[in-house]
Amino acid sequence: MPPSPALLTDRYELTMLAAALADGTADRDCVFEVFARRLPHGRRYGVLAGTGRLLDALADFRFGDEDLAALQEQGITDPALLAWLADFEFAGDVEGYAEGELYFPGSPVLAVRAPFGQAVLLETLVLSVLNHDSAIASAAARMVGAAGGRPCIEMGSRRTHEEAAVAAARAAWLVGFASTSNLAAGARYAVPTAGTSAHAFTLLHDDEAAAFRAQVDTLGTGTTLLVDTYDTMQGIRTAIEVAGTELGAVRLDSGDLGLLAVQARELLDSLGAHRTRVTVTSDLDEYAIAALAAAPVDGYGVGTSLVTGSGSPTAGMVYKLVERDGVPVAKTAEGKRSVGGRKSAVRRHDGSGTATAEVVVPGAISPQDGDRGLVVPLVQAGVRVTDADPAAWLRTARGHHEKVRTALPAEAWSLSRGEPAIDTVDR
Amino acid sequence: MPPSPALLTDRYELTMLAAALADGTADRDCVFEVFARRLPHGRRYGVLAGTGRLLDALADFRFGDEDLAALQEQGITDPALLAWLADFEFAGDVEGYAEGELYFPGSPVLAVRAPFGQAVLLETLVLSVLNHDSAIASAAARMVGAAGGRPCIEMGSRRTHEEAAVAAARAAWLVGFASTSNLAAGARYAVPTAGTSAHAFTLLHDDEAAAFRAQVDTLGTGTTLLVDTYDTMQGIRTAIEVAGTELGAVRLDSGDLGLLAVQARELLDSLGAHRTRVTVTSDLDEYAIAALAAAPVDGYGVGTSLVTGSGSPTAGMVYKLVERDGVPVAKTAEGKRSVGGRKSAVRRHDGSGTATAEVVVPGAISPQDGDRGLVVPLVQAGVRVTDADPAAWLRTARGHHEKVRTALPAEAWSLSRGEPAIDTVDR
Repeated sequence: MPPSPALLTDRYELTMLAAALADGTADRDCVFEVFARRLPHGRRYGVLAGTGRLLDALADFRFGDEDLAALQEQGITDPALLAWLADFEFAGDVEGYAEGELYFPGSPVLAVRAPFGQAVLLETLVLSVLNHDSAIASAAARMVGAAGGRPCIEMGSRRTHEEAAVAAARAAWLVGFASTSNLAAGARYAVPTAGTSAHAFTLLHDDEAAAFRAQVDTLGTGTTLLVDTYDTMQGIRTAIEVAGTELGAVRLDSGDLGLLAVQARELLDSLGAHRTRVTVTSDLDEYAIAALAAAPVDGYGVGTSLVTGSGSPTAGMVYKLVERDGVPVAKTAEGKRSVGGRKSAVRRHDGSGTATAEVVVPGAISPQDGDRGLVVPLVQAGVRVTDADPAAWLRTARGHHEKVRTALPAEAWSLSRGEPAIDTVDR
Repeated sequence: MPPSPALLTDRYELTMLAAALADGTADRDCVFEVFARRLPHGRRYGVLAGTGRLLDALADFRFGDEDLAALQEQGITDPALLAWLADFEFAGDVEGYAEGELYFPGSPVLAVRAPFGQAVLLETLVLSVLNHDSAIASAAARMVGAAGGRPCIEMGSRRTHEEAAVAAARAAWLVGFASTSNLAAGARYAVPTAGTSAHAFTLLHDDEAAAFRAQVDTLGTGTTLLVDTYDTMQGIRTAIEVAGTELGAVRLDSGDLGLLAVQARELLDSLGAHRTRVTVTSDLDEYAIAALAAAPVDGYGVGTSLVTGSGSPTAGMVYKLVERDGVPVAKTAEGKRSVGGRKSAVRRHDGSGTATAEVVVPGAISPQDGDRGLVVPLVQAGVRVTDADPAAWLRTARGHHEKVRTALPAEAWSLSRGEPAIDTVDR
């Protein structure tokens, strides 16, 4: 992140603020809600991610001298606006779903209560962080489900923006990935990192055996050798010759992975390397992972489809004004209609603890047995309620996600397109 | 960007480096090439973007004390590796296509020549930047083509990671977008910024007229009023009542945009507001833009589909070792095969100046009339050849793109899926 995220903002927020300062409406007390109108792509559930990153960024959201100079260069010269921005520090309230919580169409995953001038400034940052991270987490959760307990390794950094890569690694670990290739995610969020070698390392050496020997000498026999540079089965034989039967794993990164995994397993067993694992990588998504369920595979490395949200690279969340000075407000023209008023939200469960509905209604909800409140305070009068270092926050979120996903009904785990796993009840 | 991009790197680059340092192969002279095996989604051409951002980041690519401490916490404790990283400063050569240049399957858009230990460290950063930015630029170029001279405004920041948003705005302007909503793109790259108001601004006020009056009072009658909060046609009447017939533009952000644009134009004309423009936004992509070609629309605002690459959020470029100590090397096992040896590349043109082929062959190319060399030096012995501030670099790239795209054959402008506009000739 750059020193201040204040310019990670759309210009119209400043033009609205300038006009609202001029006519006095900037001080009107407002509530903005964040929600998704639908789940992408016939998905059964979404996973909220990014809240911790957002709160970290919000603490640094100030317009410094350099920011203000940059605005003036862009023609934003209104003196009242610039003076207001120079003093800006968010002093409102933020509440929302816990990071790692599931969401459904209409779930109010975040709400900002503040004077208009303050709340309007946060729209772009809030949506950028939550839309990106939730898209990745939602896709990653399906992959974890499809992997059925086998570990998934996130290795998609090279397929997305270099900073988005760090957030993607964080979002993947949040929902149960075992590790990431991304060193910055390890440094910033204590996500476990993993990595061994690429085809280039084999090509660098005079032959495959020399490459394997160099890797084993440095990383030990527990390492993973990439065996598909020249001839995959010969690569496996060479790997066991060099490393012995205690070799940690072989990695297959091309070809028909299901077939190669069977052949690799048979060959490893015939060589006595019964404990050497088989890891597969190469354009895996949740469907390919599921298709390999019967193959003798011990782990999945996932890249492109993870960091691009497996067909849904953004969660489509919006940031909508729902209350102004206590009055519910809503867009009413055709298309993109909204429902006015700050909502309450609970997840309803049956007697066995299975989720049955997402109840989202303006005002209060009469509690029933099996209801779980979803909205927690995050920032009060500008002060973060639960301060935590980024790694500790993420560990907590991972635990929360693991717990709440077990309450979903069985149809939630279907990869096919369909309706959300539970209905949103809005009246 | 954080102070150093060195940790925006996959862990396997360090494990390979450690092993190569131990057996002496880290000093072998290597050439890595970056290329895409195919264009995504039946596209006709790709646009290379991100080279300038990459060169900016490369200049800061050092492992500082904090970075090294973070690596040790992750268990990367090999003393020889850490000592080497502490001294690392890229001292090799980089050459490649000019930013904004078109590319086709196999085009060697970047090449890094350096000892293995240096070149291997750059893989993730190089690919993250080029894959993201090229995906956005390639989608954006199709939108600019579909818009046929009408201005396109980039406004997708909220739909992607907050830093990816800045890069996306930069990539869109590179290929001909008129402006962006993103203030940081204005500050860092001098991309023109634009923005007026959201539905929230109307809902904030007691009625639509009060909101329009506030906006016009502050921004002048040349502003754009968003007219579809309550009733779109009534919104237009109110807009002209408040602002007069010299109102700059009205914006339609929901509903059937083609129909509404016709109705809005007729209404504006009937009110005497002949010069008030009609701008449309709301889930536009290149196909929706093309479908509005016959509608009386004066500009397009594009969000989600721009920042997500319109179905192809990554360019799929790879970073492959092709030469080691002057010897061509290549992966030969089934799947993901590569061609060894550093390639030369020219674009071939017929007598009328229309591009006919991308010639990409190992070694030298005997020049023909109409050939244009595509590879330019970027970094020599670690020093950037063409130093330029980021805004000046981007202006040059925009000019280059505008020039080279005119040489494409007519079929390049088809939005339907098909073959690349020119063939790649590789022998």
